[in-house]
Amino acid sequence: MVQKHRYQLLLDKVNQYNSGDKGITRIAYTDLEQTCTHAFMRLCIAEGMEVRLDPSGNMIARRQGRNNELPPVLMGSHLDTVYQGGRYDGTVGVTAALEVVKRMNEKNIITEHPIEIISFACEESARFGVSTLGSKAMTGALEKEKYRHLKDRDGITVEKAFSLCALDYDQIDQASRADEKIKAFFELHVEQGPVLLNNKKKIGIVTGIAAPIRFSVKMLGKASHSGTTPMNMRKDALLGAAELSLELERAAKLEEAAGTVATIGYLNLPNGAMNIVPGEVELKIDIRSTCLESRQRVAEHVHHAIAKIQAERELDIETVEIASEEPVQLSAEMNQDLVTICEEKSLSYQQMHSGAGHDAMNMTTLCPVGLIFVPSVDGLSHHPNEFTELDDILAGIDVLEEAVVQCAGVAE
Amino acid sequence: MVQKHRYQLLLDKVNQYNSGDKGITRIAYTDLEQTCTHAFMRLCIAEGMEVRLDPSGNMIARRQGRNNELPPVLMGSHLDTVYQGGRYDGTVGVTAALEVVKRMNEKNIITEHPIEIISFACEESARFGVSTLGSKAMTGALEKEKYRHLKDRDGITVEKAFSLCALDYDQIDQASRADEKIKAFFELHVEQGPVLLNNKKKIGIVTGIAAPIRFSVKMLGKASHSGTTPMNMRKDALLGAAELSLELERAAKLEEAAGTVATIGYLNLPNGAMNIVPGEVELKIDIRSTCLESRQRVAEHVHHAIAKIQAERELDIETVEIASEEPVQLSAEMNQDLVTICEEKSLSYQQMHSGAGHDAMNMTTLCPVGLIFVPSVDGLSHHPNEFTELDDILAGIDVLEEAVVQCAGVAE
Repeated sequence: MVQKHRYQLLLDKVNQYNSGDKGITRIAYTDLEQTCTHAFMRLCIAEGMEVRLDPSGNMIARRQGRNNELPPVLMGSHLDTVYQGGRYDGTVGVTAALEVVKRMNEKNIITEHPIEIISFACEESARFGVSTLGSKAMTGALEKEKYRHLKDRDGITVEKAFSLCALDYDQIDQASRADEKIKAFFELHVEQGPVLLNNKKKIGIVTGIAAPIRFSVKMLGKASHSGTTPMNMRKDALLGAAELSLELERAAKLEEAAGTVATIGYLNLPNGAMNIVPGEVELKIDIRSTCLESRQRVAEHVHHAIAKIQAERELDIETVEIASEEPVQLSAEMNQDLVTICEEKSLSYQQMHSGAGHDAMNMTTLCPVGLIFVPSVDGLSHHPNEFTELDDILAGIDVLEEAVVQCAGVAE
Repeated sequence: MVQKHRYQLLLDKVNQYNSGDKGITRIAYTDLEQTCTHAFMRLCIAEGMEVRLDPSGNMIARRQGRNNELPPVLMGSHLDTVYQGGRYDGTVGVTAALEVVKRMNEKNIITEHPIEIISFACEESARFGVSTLGSKAMTGALEKEKYRHLKDRDGITVEKAFSLCALDYDQIDQASRADEKIKAFFELHVEQGPVLLNNKKKIGIVTGIAAPIRFSVKMLGKASHSGTTPMNMRKDALLGAAELSLELERAAKLEEAAGTVATIGYLNLPNGAMNIVPGEVELKIDIRSTCLESRQRVAEHVHHAIAKIQAERELDIETVEIASEEPVQLSAEMNQDLVTICEEKSLSYQQMHSGAGHDAMNMTTLCPVGLIFVPSVDGLSHHPNEFTELDDILAGIDVLEEAVVQCAGVAE
């Protein structure tokens, strides 16, 4: 109960840094987010940690081990949010890491390996349209010149935002730890989906992180009068889009075993009116999977459907691939360790995919990675009503603590 | 050739009254439309006709017969257009009527019955959202108080627009000719659809005018993350709309023999984004037929489809009927007369429905009505590129002339 109250206070402390009326708004590289990071850094120092700030804005707090030549065990997540986001996304992972260190300090645990808390910079794409900037920089995967001039909605570039935080964008390469030996990285995160609650599980052990392939599709038919154009003389673009969306659903459901999902989340019918047969529709397709082959099968199903619709409905259909990212598999060994921990603690769990991206995804190029999910009420995230039960977070922290301590090795 | 050139000049003369850059914009009860009507009235006077203006803004030009106690034979259409409309919709019918009178004058034809040209006011719904205002007034079918305060896009009411034309809306009832005996009404109009050209016919003889039943549908599902929400845990409103639109098409195609058509011309997905499963869709359904039973079968198919989608996809679906108008059957006798005329003139023709509304529709309550269509290139109407071949219009005028002269009876 003491720990529970303490953790609640910590979460509240971080979430008092909020510029929004609805939910939490703590945008990357703003004064508010920097102040929050600064406050969090101070809390780490208070636990006896050594802190440093890397040139991408990541905050790194280190708890020395008995042998500081050994590669460190890392844990963390991010403190930045989307506009009108929730109190849990990212914040849970960073505060949980500090709670783990507090517990270790209480128990006077000394580990063989040093332990680090990472608060990653700019995980959300809300500001610049690109996500996980800090973990990309840490893993040496950041495309420096591609990002430099990206602008936020006020026209401020990444480079300028860095400068306003007393960061020098030119030095961002120095954030890379690609040449360093790192033992492992653990991230605790809210699921942001409905699976755990639906399946009545407390812990999700993530086996892989899905990545999207995305298409922008424009269908051109022939706008005509809805009263005077017989059904067999129409070229109705909306009906083409309707067929495509149902085919996409069918294709994704065939890949249910692989956890593949597919969505048309954007559809626009320009100049739509009650008495006009739709002549043009634009839509966007998002297909995600941790399994490239499965995702590819859905994409091919889509291409066949488009060809069929084009021929049968005499539409002109233009399809542009606008993104294609690589799914990431997490360490099977790590996964097994987390399974064992859940079983020992009698916590209900399931192994699952993550449909959303996380800093953990980038960290797989540096070291084995473990990603732990706790349930999201209603599957809601990036929303003021985002909610996770405190007890569920604490169960997640128990698993994180055990995993990190085991991995870092308790010194006799 | 002389007649062809003369008619082209007349059509051009009317279309010089245009306030738009693209196509023709001649909006009901505007100064421009009033000036055009005034000019047309002058052209009627020049042909020896007596003109009068009724309290709804209709212009009526009369060519006396030998026996002016006999009920008159009417012909006409409208001079107002939609915003950025075409050169033919309505204008063809009014100018054709004048061309018929010119020919009769050339041939010194005296008819038994008097003949009238009507230029109906405000046929298009473009200004006030209601159509055929002038013919409704003439047939005594205008819902006076319902229309009085309707506003145009500048906030001007019908009543105010009347006043700006020196018309008194309070007197609109006096436009009614419901108590008068009228022999017949003929309207020549462009088809506004692709049927005649597709079937390689010169003349369409309209047997009935379809009327719409319209529904506004709102589907509520659950917005969720497109990456983290498994396919079987979604409530995707867009997929519900997709199913409905394809069911609507299927239902209408089953009623092809009745010429029933059905369209979703408006669909909106608020807050649509690539990475969000659609939680809400609004759409509008338009079902038209000349056969009430057929239209009703499609509407019932829609209601069944909605109930099924609601249950299967766990959506909340709200359906509101926003319009339900009565289809109109035209005079079978008139129809037969027009068929005979086409056959005598060796003009290819077909009997067909009109999917769009016309002043002719209202006139059926006063007298037998004949509605003659000429082909629309590409079926295009309410569009700057609206086009009908001049020779096709002239063929239509030949039919109109013969029908009117026969109906009015040539005096020996």
